[in-house]
Amino acid sequence: MQRTLTKDLNKEIGKEVSISGWVDVRRDHGKLIFLVIRDRSGSVQVVVTPKAEAALKAAEHLRDEWVVTVSGEVKERPENMVKDEQNGNIEMSALQIEVLSEAQELPFDKDTEVNLDTLLDYRPLTMRAQRGKDISTVQSTILEAFHKSMRTNNFTEFAAPGLVPGDAEGGGEAFAVEYFDDKTAYLATSPQLYKQIMVGVHERAYTVAKIFRAERSTTTRHLSESTQMDFEMGFIKDHTDVMSMLETSTKLIVQSVVEKHGDVFDRFGISAPAIPEKFPVFTLKEAQEVIEKDFGNKCVGELDLEPEHERQICEHALKEFGSDFVFITHFPTKKRAFYTYSETLESTESLSFDLLFRGLEINSGSQRIHSYADLLKKMEKVGIDPKNFEIYLQAFKYGMPPHGGCSTGLDRMTMKMLDLQNVREASPFPRDMNRIDTLLAKEE
Amino acid sequence: MQRTLTKDLNKEIGKEVSISGWVDVRRDHGKLIFLVIRDRSGSVQVVVTPKAEAALKAAEHLRDEWVVTVSGEVKERPENMVKDEQNGNIEMSALQIEVLSEAQELPFDKDTEVNLDTLLDYRPLTMRAQRGKDISTVQSTILEAFHKSMRTNNFTEFAAPGLVPGDAEGGGEAFAVEYFDDKTAYLATSPQLYKQIMVGVHERAYTVAKIFRAERSTTTRHLSESTQMDFEMGFIKDHTDVMSMLETSTKLIVQSVVEKHGDVFDRFGISAPAIPEKFPVFTLKEAQEVIEKDFGNKCVGELDLEPEHERQICEHALKEFGSDFVFITHFPTKKRAFYTYSETLESTESLSFDLLFRGLEINSGSQRIHSYADLLKKMEKVGIDPKNFEIYLQAFKYGMPPHGGCSTGLDRMTMKMLDLQNVREASPFPRDMNRIDTLLAKEE
Repeated sequence: MQRTLTKDLNKEIGKEVSISGWVDVRRDHGKLIFLVIRDRSGSVQVVVTPKAEAALKAAEHLRDEWVVTVSGEVKERPENMVKDEQNGNIEMSALQIEVLSEAQELPFDKDTEVNLDTLLDYRPLTMRAQRGKDISTVQSTILEAFHKSMRTNNFTEFAAPGLVPGDAEGGGEAFAVEYFDDKTAYLATSPQLYKQIMVGVHERAYTVAKIFRAERSTTTRHLSESTQMDFEMGFIKDHTDVMSMLETSTKLIVQSVVEKHGDVFDRFGISAPAIPEKFPVFTLKEAQEVIEKDFGNKCVGELDLEPEHERQICEHALKEFGSDFVFITHFPTKKRAFYTYSETLESTESLSFDLLFRGLEINSGSQRIHSYADLLKKMEKVGIDPKNFEIYLQAFKYGMPPHGGCSTGLDRMTMKMLDLQNVREASPFPRDMNRIDTLLAKEE
Repeated sequence: MQRTLTKDLNKEIGKEVSISGWVDVRRDHGKLIFLVIRDRSGSVQVVVTPKAEAALKAAEHLRDEWVVTVSGEVKERPENMVKDEQNGNIEMSALQIEVLSEAQELPFDKDTEVNLDTLLDYRPLTMRAQRGKDISTVQSTILEAFHKSMRTNNFTEFAAPGLVPGDAEGGGEAFAVEYFDDKTAYLATSPQLYKQIMVGVHERAYTVAKIFRAERSTTTRHLSESTQMDFEMGFIKDHTDVMSMLETSTKLIVQSVVEKHGDVFDRFGISAPAIPEKFPVFTLKEAQEVIEKDFGNKCVGELDLEPEHERQICEHALKEFGSDFVFITHFPTKKRAFYTYSETLESTESLSFDLLFRGLEINSGSQRIHSYADLLKKMEKVGIDPKNFEIYLQAFKYGMPPHGGCSTGLDRMTMKMLDLQNVREASPFPRDMNRIDTLLAKEE
């Protein structure tokens, strides 16, 4: 019999159908066994009675996470048993049960709240829990909406390279790779240089790219590998054109998640992100003044916002502007990468921005220098050798329009969308200093 | 004045507009200068006459690839000057020209046919050529259609990791990465194990993932980094369910490219891929028999198809079935990875397949072993230590449905879609043994 998804069972009341999935719950009442069968579309209660002798016998052996095909009749529940949930008005009366796969006894109920190390030690299992599944489902929708926003706005997608010839932006944050014949390659710390090159080809280019950073950091917001949603666009008037595009894209992402996954926000006990008509914008200096005034935190004149300051300006933005998002602009030139545009080469302020979401920076962007001559001067000024940037510089040698772009961290955005405490929970397979799937053994 | 894209100029006949783009062509006729201005949407001819004195003066300095904003009037061309091409019926009469960026003299006309090394040495420039731009535009559409086919069929997208703990499938093809504290990590050679884990979570999972292979190969079809379009699906009856899904996805990709980029096939002087109602399917043995019979190439009994055999069976499929695609199935168990499913552990044939496209394997897939006990037995049989697969095996320990999946090489698919001679041309930034952007210097 053809498989019916549990979400479609409501259309099959009174009929005999076949479903396949995992045993999510099993309750043995002696003469009756109740199962909840879970598939990708949801779940349904199955009742196994002595009338279906072989099925009852099979059900006696079933345990959590066994994989089964159940055929049976879809029935309406008695009115006093109806629950306000998916398939809460129906149940299946089993006729046959076929075991497709057995499972060992679970080390803990998969929906138990466990500590972070256990969560990651048992990733294949904890991602099956409602919470884990919800997080990765939301992440998939974020990706879908990002792609959609880019395509709608005429961006061309390209695959940015993971292997790069050098530690491009310096800082020693690039992992070294043993390449062929004792040569050394590096892992990309950003798709930046390549997406700028693509502006020369398509004006508007985007990529969903892996980046790798050898940062010795064990905070709740850093991973050594992360997925970035990057775009870059030509013929802008300044960085505010990039901010508008990012705002449009971000709103579409939030709307998509809210529309598709309202139930997830309910289950997580949080509200959907607050989106005002226009994201509030503060220059770094303005933000620091607000933080000093509202929170008594002296910081005016500092070159960047501390994590605590990011939380405070977001608190302010939510209270005063009803926004979970806030832009901070005009970071000091010396705190931004060499390609960042400033009014003049001597300007101490750059046309750059961060986008903060619920207290955390999730995106960083700017207008970029587009003049070949200016780029060379800037590289000289900050001590970067143009020889290591031959391919990148070619794009500028042969004519580049004013352009800018930005990069959103997928895991960070997911983390804040669902108000998670640690970015590791927002990544299906997080990598950090101590863990790649399993904890790393110390080398002897 | 707001920018108008060149593709929209037809709606502005008789009006004054402003366009921005690159100088694609410049012809100096003394008193008149003709420009072709290129933007992301196409191009248009601009006439600069002495009536616009300042514009003419500016136009005298312009050279190929300078970036400009031109304002002027959109005029219909005299009937005898109308060309059958985009904007062939109009031209712009320049009133003002503003230079946004200069360009150095080009080393060669960007649309000249150059050899592969030059093509890659000047990647930012050669990708701007019509041919380079066409290739990356088609590639973007392939990605878009792949995503669409997966979403339509209820697949959940996830980001597969690039850093992995070991050389999973053996064979020494994984690049080593210097990780933290003298630990060694590796680059993923496939998202395989992770997408199987995701089947346990979402039944249907897909990813567009970078893979890295330290294969000492300099053929026209190998890169050390490639982009793979992978999916994996649960609750299948066997490998043919995966083949059906792949066929659906592949047809959508080809249709999308054909619908959007018919002009590219014209420019490349090739026909769109031939798509029959159903892709022809041969077992490896059947294919070998055809090759022996039709081409006199003795190969029945060999464990795999040689590149020449792949070309020959494709030639046969095109002639006999009107198809540029052909499936080969049932490869020997010992030629496929340990996780490949066979009817029994002793079977010499596996439920596996390759998809060939115009003479080249672009996809490889199979049903996978889903029983934990069978997987352990198989690993023992082929000498793989389960200890190195702890996280992967967990998915099976806790119940996995019958499942299968496959992986399409994006660059290979692009290569064959446009009948390119070398996969390097199909990748925006190809990496191989000798090149990462620029040729790699031999270490001293």
